Amino acid sequence: MQKKLLEVCLTPALLPLYKVEDYIVVIIDIFRATSSICYGIENGAQAIIPVSEVEECAAYREKGLNYLLAAERNGEVVAGFDFGNSPFAYTADKVAGKTVVLTTTNGTHALHLSRNAKKIVIGSFLNLTALSNWLKTQEENILMVCAGWKNNFNLEDTLFAGAVIEQLKGDCYVLDDPALAANDLFQIGKNDISQYLSKTSHGERLKKLGIEQDIAFCLQVDIATAIPVLEGEKLVKLA
Amino acid sequence: MQKKLLEVCLTPALLPLYKVEDYIVVIIDIFRATSSICYGIENGAQAIIPVSEVEECAAYREKGLNYLLAAERNGEVVAGFDFGNSPFAYTADKVAGKTVVLTTTNGTHALHLSRNAKKIVIGSFLNLTALSNWLKTQEENILMVCAGWKNNFNLEDTLFAGAVIEQLKGDCYVLDDPALAANDLFQIGKNDISQYLSKTSHGERLKKLGIEQDIAFCLQVDIATAIPVLEGEKLVKLA
Ligand SMILES: [Mg+2]
Ligand SMILES: [Mg+2]
Repeated sequence: MQKKLLEVCLTPALLPLYKVEDYIVVIIDIFRATSSICYGIENGAQAIIPVSEVEECAAYREKGLNYLLAAERNGEVVAGFDFGNSPFAYTADKVAGKTVVLTTTNGTHALHLSRNAKKIVIGSFLNLTALSNWLKTQEENILMVCAGWKNNFNLEDTLFAGAVIEQLKGDCYVLDDPALAANDLFQIGKNDISQYLSKTSHGERLKKLGIEQDIAFCLQVDIATAIPVLEGEKLVKLA
Repeated sequence: MQKKLLEVCLTPALLPLYKVEDYIVVIIDIFRATSSICYGIENGAQAIIPVSEVEECAAYREKGLNYLLAAERNGEVVAGFDFGNSPFAYTADKVAGKTVVLTTTNGTHALHLSRNAKKIVIGSFLNLTALSNWLKTQEENILMVCAGWKNNFNLEDTLFAGAVIEQLKGDCYVLDDPALAANDLFQIGKNDISQYLSKTSHGERLKKLGIEQDIAFCLQVDIATAIPVLEGEKLVKLA
């Protein structure tokens, strides 16, 4: 069997270095976009549409009541929107059968730059094993794209990439240096991911926003089995 | 005392995210440019001039016999040049009192992008402790810039950044996520750096070029105390 590539793009700024057409791309934005997306799709959202700007999100208001609009600024739900980016908003009673328009700067940027990939799926700790098992069945190169923080490296997204690699690594894949590093960082952090990530500056920032509960939620492993996949502009449940 | 920043730029592609004017920059290209530069300056080279292209290097030929020209392609010294990029060429009997023009793509790129920094110094395992001790005395933010591999992340440069952080970290500095990651990777690799790096694809590539001896040389710790610093276009010994 020919070996496949198992690689990690540490920030969207490095995506131009990859020929995304050759890969299945996994988008990772652990705090909180891709965690909320996985949870929402798991709970029966018909689709989730990621957009960059609050204004873009607001434009969906006119499309009717089946759209729920999610946007926050500085940790608060924007006035007139249905909810913010907390995964707790994506429960079945709220999202089942609905289309959610989600404002997420880093995540949308990563998605947009990856649009020519063979397929784009969404990863988070919530669907870690389901995602990894599906990836194993694909005879394709895999590129995990960390949304990062303001185009730079962050630990939480990289650690998750390392967690996927932990489940996939073996004779079938060739890892690049970022993948080796991500997997090693996961080895260091895996026994207490929350504790490991608490030392990051981003963790500090999130704590100040009062979203420790969101963070704890996003670090739950395998509470979902749905894999969101991009179809056109929409993320839907992989059949 | 006000805290200073201790940060790591994982590849030159991410340098635009930093305001380099606010930092002392340490350039890192372990295999082999910055190791050879540290060794050459230690051994009395008057100056080392890094250039990107073999043609630029060749142009110094006309400037006279005091210039030594170093360039290689595919692991071989380019015909008509004095030596290649092996650190073994930078011994006192060859370089003392001379100016060496060194062709190094990744390293020159990183230097060029950092040119507005407060100061630019050169790091390698060879001068690790001397460099770290000097950095400690500076009341400045520190940015370690990994030359990387084709603008992407590599393990050897990141590991070295982690080794410097290991000597500096403490109450005086605030580390960013790349710095935290670099230091954690150093913890994993430090007991046998050579073994740790042998798993990288780059390590494989270097072995094929038959430069295992160069690699072993570049991983020697603290065999030099000189710190190369950029003055104009030249790297000279920090007074
Ligand atoms: Mg994020
Ligand atoms: Mg290098």
